[in-house]
Amino acid sequence: MREAGGDLSSQIVTSYDCISFLTDYGLEDGFVAACHGVATRIAPAARLIDITHLVPPGDVRRGAAVLAQTVGYLPPAVHVAVVDPGVGTARRAVAVAAGDSVLVGPDNGLLSWAIDALGGAQTVIHLTNGELWLHPVSATFQGRDIFMPVAARLAAGAGLTSAGDEIEPGDLVALPAPTSRVSDGEAEGEVMSVDRFGNVQLSIPAADAGRLGIGIGSALVVRCGRRQLTVPYLDTFAAGAPGEIVAFTDSAGLISLAINTGDAAQQLGLPPGAHVRLSLPPTG
Amino acid sequence: MREAGGDLSSQIVTSYDCISFLTDYGLEDGFVAACHGVATRIAPAARLIDITHLVPPGDVRRGAAVLAQTVGYLPPAVHVAVVDPGVGTARRAVAVAAGDSVLVGPDNGLLSWAIDALGGAQTVIHLTNGELWLHPVSATFQGRDIFMPVAARLAAGAGLTSAGDEIEPGDLVALPAPTSRVSDGEAEGEVMSVDRFGNVQLSIPAADAGRLGIGIGSALVVRCGRRQLTVPYLDTFAAGAPGEIVAFTDSAGLISLAINTGDAAQQLGLPPGAHVRLSLPPTG
Amino acid sequence: MREAGGDLSSQIVTSYDCISFLTDYGLEDGFVAACHGVATRIAPAARLIDITHLVPPGDVRRGAAVLAQTVGYLPPAVHVAVVDPGVGTARRAVAVAAGDSVLVGPDNGLLSWAIDALGGAQTVIHLTNGELWLHPVSATFQGRDIFMPVAARLAAGAGLTSAGDEIEPGDLVALPAPTSRVSDGEAEGEVMSVDRFGNVQLSIPAADAGRLGIGIGSALVVRCGRRQLTVPYLDTFAAGAPGEIVAFTDSAGLISLAINTGDAAQQLGLPPGAHVRLSLPPTG
Repeated sequence: MREAGGDLSSQIVTSYDCISFLTDYGLEDGFVAACHGVATRIAPAARLIDITHLVPPGDVRRGAAVLAQTVGYLPPAVHVAVVDPGVGTARRAVAVAAGDSVLVGPDNGLLSWAIDALGGAQTVIHLTNGELWLHPVSATFQGRDIFMPVAARLAAGAGLTSAGDEIEPGDLVALPAPTSRVSDGEAEGEVMSVDRFGNVQLSIPAADAGRLGIGIGSALVVRCGRRQLTVPYLDTFAAGAPGEIVAFTDSAGLISLAINTGDAAQQLGLPPGAHVRLSLPPTG
Repeated sequence: MREAGGDLSSQIVTSYDCISFLTDYGLEDGFVAACHGVATRIAPAARLIDITHLVPPGDVRRGAAVLAQTVGYLPPAVHVAVVDPGVGTARRAVAVAAGDSVLVGPDNGLLSWAIDALGGAQTVIHLTNGELWLHPVSATFQGRDIFMPVAARLAAGAGLTSAGDEIEPGDLVALPAPTSRVSDGEAEGEVMSVDRFGNVQLSIPAADAGRLGIGIGSALVVRCGRRQLTVPYLDTFAAGAPGEIVAFTDSAGLISLAINTGDAAQQLGLPPGAHVRLSLPPTG
Repeated sequence: MREAGGDLSSQIVTSYDCISFLTDYGLEDGFVAACHGVATRIAPAARLIDITHLVPPGDVRRGAAVLAQTVGYLPPAVHVAVVDPGVGTARRAVAVAAGDSVLVGPDNGLLSWAIDALGGAQTVIHLTNGELWLHPVSATFQGRDIFMPVAARLAAGAGLTSAGDEIEPGDLVALPAPTSRVSDGEAEGEVMSVDRFGNVQLSIPAADAGRLGIGIGSALVVRCGRRQLTVPYLDTFAAGAPGEIVAFTDSAGLISLAINTGDAAQQLGLPPGAHVRLSLPPTG
């Protein structure tokens, strides 16, 4: 992020060295490349970092989770995210200043958890200034024609307010936060995501579990539906015996379930959204 | 694209800031990275844009379609494309100047639709100058040993004619254009491609359908084989009710069939190449 | 690679323009992007080249093979490789100077074949200097918190010995080399890998087969388990008739089996690790 106070204007001009990009476009087509091309034509000096393009089609919640868990490790950037089952309908397109970055995407909740992770929305712009878009605008590929062109112009130094009309941060669509409740000696949550290794990430922060006295070295009772199992809570899944189900604190600070050299999600039958409760084993 | 007239030569030297890359190499191996490495050693300043590496193995027609629909959104570049079931046999390797770019790949039709999209071939060079290649040349990995080294040298400013012998544009292998015919009140075409969302892209431009009076808001009769269905032609698939099959104009200007939050290709059983006819519903 | 002798120090400072990256992280999550972000923050000028992130989870041997067959085509670089089923346990993290590059990863054999390919280890550092890491260090995502931060600092010019304590090259964990033996008129080896096309790469170098008189144009007897087949040894798989199984020398100089426009691994039932013997057909 580079800032420069203009002599003739009180507006601070900010440019960004980096544009990040998350979508559900997949990698089989030229969709991602077309957006890279548009960005490169407008902001040739910006570095492009692809977060992922394999969000399941239309899965706004999954896209929101990956975005929120990744932005903190990226440089100050314009983060473009497009998982947009309502493309071309009345949902708004927005740009949101948050922390040291700007997020650009549809106003369908996709950006909301990342906004929180970056410290909350400072300024929100409804993207109404068509002069920053690529014309003709396709009704079904606004990543190429609206989101990326606007993002690249912002990266190249255009002022945020030039992109449209300011709206209230409170008017943004927000996804409900993942369930995470601590009460009656239980931490209750849901499966946030399942990664490539079959590791099951819960919405329960290790810190919350800690309030119940659950810490590394504890045995942990996991309840999901009618099933119940007791697992060790270890430093890392690799500390488990091969085939053993273990709990550990994952790289996002959340409690996760894994099987050393196995696929916990498959063995436990726990898809994203499934409800899970954790507690210490009964004493005595 | 940067041009510089030399003092001692009438040849205009052109260099390119960007190399694009499309293959059927897949992402599991180190093939793509080896090519990136070769490009970076020769042209360290060029930006690499991957179009896709997931063209189905040997599917020249699919590679040609993705390339042609993407190049228009990329900066002036050397576009390298390798879908090459005849690698190591007598088929020629070529570099083709078209529009503001150069295309490099096997002369098997893969480049032909992109050449058309860029305005036609200006100069065609048969890649015969082995001094620009990486030696020893593998008979089965010419992306690494011929196409990318030549492309990177062109990007770095080597003259196109230094790469080999000029041949006639008319001698290039061209894929037959996708069927698209309008007659007797019907637009006839084929399935061009199916994207990650299951959207079925037809070879029928919206403009051709328009000649039949088919426009946004029309009902549309779709015939494929013995089946026939009537669907609305809407602004965007997202305007359909969930589960409803709709037609829309896609981001390439072609008529496509989709199901809002569903997989149209699967439900309709329409693979690439399938013949489809469109017409207005009978009146009265 | 840029070198600069310091005035006040006899240590030669080396920086690298390129960081390569190979993992089993997959492409569905934000793991790879988080590492790219960390690298970009620390070494904004370095180019990142992804080798692959689709190594099968925990398959150290496969990761080692892809890395070793790719590094020779990359520029001088810091090569980061993370396939690390023992993450967070006692296995060491290391940085190894070899050839014109440095390799960074877990000391579990993953780097060993690439070290050989680059000419052998010159200096080996056990990564013990936590000042170069990203804190807090996750027990399960050391790619983000240890390997990539250290690699980026090395790329940006930090001295190799600043990363930790020097250990003996002979103390590195080495994977057993792939079987390749020539005796009694037979070349014996194993399946190294199967690529996206279904081509079966054997661990038998074409040069070894040559010692048996096996060369382009020979017929070749292939024995695997109780099966035996005789195939032609051609310049390229594309020279075979459609559907014909052929042997050829692949782009890594190894003998491979393929079917022109088919999937040899599937048809032959040859997974990685399967033992294979090659010989000339009996004469007379």
